[in-house]
Amino acid sequence: MTIKQQCIFCKIIKNEIPVIKVYETSKNLAFLDINPLTIGHSLIIPKKHAENIFDISPDDFKALMIDAQKLAKILKISLKAQGINLINSSGEIAGQSVFHFHFHLIPRYKNDKLEFSDWWNKKTKKINNQELFKIAQKITKNK
Amino acid sequence: MTIKQQCIFCKIIKNEIPVIKVYETSKNLAFLDINPLTIGHSLIIPKKHAENIFDISPDDFKALMIDAQKLAKILKISLKAQGINLINSSGEIAGQSVFHFHFHLIPRYKNDKLEFSDWWNKKTKKINNQELFKIAQKITKNK
Repeated sequence: MTIKQQCIFCKIIKNEIPVIKVYETSKNLAFLDINPLTIGHSLIIPKKHAENIFDISPDDFKALMIDAQKLAKILKISLKAQGINLINSSGEIAGQSVFHFHFHLIPRYKNDKLEFSDWWNKKTKKINNQELFKIAQKITKNK
Repeated sequence: MTIKQQCIFCKIIKNEIPVIKVYETSKNLAFLDINPLTIGHSLIIPKKHAENIFDISPDDFKALMIDAQKLAKILKISLKAQGINLINSSGEIAGQSVFHFHFHLIPRYKNDKLEFSDWWNKKTKKINNQELFKIAQKITKNK
């Protein structure tokens, strides 16, 4: 079997695995995450298989993000959310568990108890300017 | 003063506040986060002020994401990252602290001790199909 034939999200697109759809265009599909972080937590995926941010075509990526923006607005209005987090994990090390490109849309509410900022603030590292400059040099050399 | 005049990121774009730049195009700028989650943690922002995902123009958003994808590839190669997280927080409740649209690019490494997946897995909620269907109905009614 090819990767595409084994891919859970490709099967979802072909209606071989049921999901609860919330948004669909010719190029993209969005459905509810069955293990949600908040009410309305959705995944948006391109219908054409790509693994992650590193291999999705720029055209498919643009089309996906435009639909993601439309869905973000729909989620905010329909669910009376006060904000939203958009999250992509590219690579197993980043938390990616299904290797078909997807963006999480996580509507945010007062008292949703996600404590995302708490986690974030605990995980920031102290770093001095000299170290930052060295990192920037490494990055800009590859441009 | 207008919002744009007060905005820290607008001042960064005008070179009124120094940052360590890692990527720049005519429409977008990326620089290192001074409170990084990992080595190379960068922010990419549009030069034209927008507050969040709800008000950035689709054209500016597309242009930003294409540059974000290019930067993601550069970060992976130049820093030998094994993956990356792309995160946007739209709205104070979502953790947004600077009200100029930005995407975080967080390169991921073995032993980066971010424990993002651990936090995530702790925060997922149990929900049954009936509840999910009710949520989907609310969302799709607003399309």
